[in-house]
Amino acid sequence: MAIDRQTIVYDGPGGPFEGVAVTDSDLDGPRPGVMIVPNVLGAKEEDSVVGERLAALGYAAFVADVYGQGKRTTRESPNPAVYMAELNADRALLRDRLFASVAAMKALPDVDGAKTAAIGYCFGGKSVIDLARAGGEVLGVVAFHGIFDAPDYDYPTPITAKLLICHGWDDPLAPPEAVTGLAAELTRAGADWQLHAHGNAGHAFTDETMAAGVRPGFAYDANAARRSWKAMRDFLAELFG
Amino acid sequence: MAIDRQTIVYDGPGGPFEGVAVTDSDLDGPRPGVMIVPNVLGAKEEDSVVGERLAALGYAAFVADVYGQGKRTTRESPNPAVYMAELNADRALLRDRLFASVAAMKALPDVDGAKTAAIGYCFGGKSVIDLARAGGEVLGVVAFHGIFDAPDYDYPTPITAKLLICHGWDDPLAPPEAVTGLAAELTRAGADWQLHAHGNAGHAFTDETMAAGVRPGFAYDANAARRSWKAMRDFLAELFG
Repeated sequence: MAIDRQTIVYDGPGGPFEGVAVTDSDLDGPRPGVMIVPNVLGAKEEDSVVGERLAALGYAAFVADVYGQGKRTTRESPNPAVYMAELNADRALLRDRLFASVAAMKALPDVDGAKTAAIGYCFGGKSVIDLARAGGEVLGVVAFHGIFDAPDYDYPTPITAKLLICHGWDDPLAPPEAVTGLAAELTRAGADWQLHAHGNAGHAFTDETMAAGVRPGFAYDANAARRSWKAMRDFLAELFG
Repeated sequence: MAIDRQTIVYDGPGGPFEGVAVTDSDLDGPRPGVMIVPNVLGAKEEDSVVGERLAALGYAAFVADVYGQGKRTTRESPNPAVYMAELNADRALLRDRLFASVAAMKALPDVDGAKTAAIGYCFGGKSVIDLARAGGEVLGVVAFHGIFDAPDYDYPTPITAKLLICHGWDDPLAPPEAVTGLAAELTRAGADWQLHAHGNAGHAFTDETMAAGVRPGFAYDANAARRSWKAMRDFLAELFG
């Protein structure tokens, strides 16, 4: 196994964008592609590490950039959410950047364009649910501690991408009424959806850097992280056959 | 592989009871035990078939009887729910019969008493949640389209058995408010719990004999059946290490 990273600069509305392709260069030929949509901070080392975990499973991973080249923040930035806020205020622009990112993934030489999926964390979880809503051409999406509010545009139904929503039940950004609202929305939209609620887990449960007690309802949770990753693996295996 | 069935008669309050042990007699030595609590109709062929699937995975399966020897119904019975109704009216008696059933499973020669779990369908799903609530000595329980109302007795906390609740979101017997109620209850009780909501699935989603359209909200659902079985396998693998 030889896991390689390659910076990929690609176009789209408000671009250029800078993603990272992560693949096992010991494998031959096209393989299923999995796009990773980062959290509020944008593409960072942790996302490439997720890409490496996916590449080790035999997938071609692609860390997407929906903010634009060089637009990144950290938890210590004056406003860590500055770029996210722009897209939360323009969900159609987020959609179009997601579409551009999927196209960039499908253009990678080792990606089988007929077998792709997207996963995302926090804002990236919201993004991949939007990707499914908007008719993005992926077989399925997995949201980890995503946000559930519907976009302000109409979208085509039925939703064709399958959805797996991995949710910490105690997430203050997605309380029970948001869960029941999303469930009703996805059912109305004819989606094939599953929601895994993890008891005692809050927002950011996959994020090992998120210590408990710093921000109420935000914390890494080893059980939810491990179990949701396994569920994702099962889901991807089903998608790609 | 040589999957065998053996009728097991055992004692308990209101007994005798008649269960079925299902095991691979080609395997040597004790192995993890998985108890199956049947649906409203009581132990029947379908439960032993589930036992065979579990035995093929290397577990020692045990179909429990919480009604009493000879007390069984069919969908065509004048009152299919007659025995279930008795136990819904006496949840403490249900608890005690579940405890007797766990003891019977642990007494089986091929069961490793330190590694046991229980699964259940419909009323059996409710039963295994009660088993966890009441402090039953199993490592974990899996409810398939269970019913979520809490028993009328106080139970010790924290709940120590882990719970996986596999739920059809459209189940009319467990609407969204029952889901949020169970989540709150299990969180208060300190349980390690997960709830997998399956979109578009209703009650009895594992039951291949349940044709769609006969009873609103009740139907077999191949996706939910397959995915929840896989989730159960992952859960048992985690429990038994």
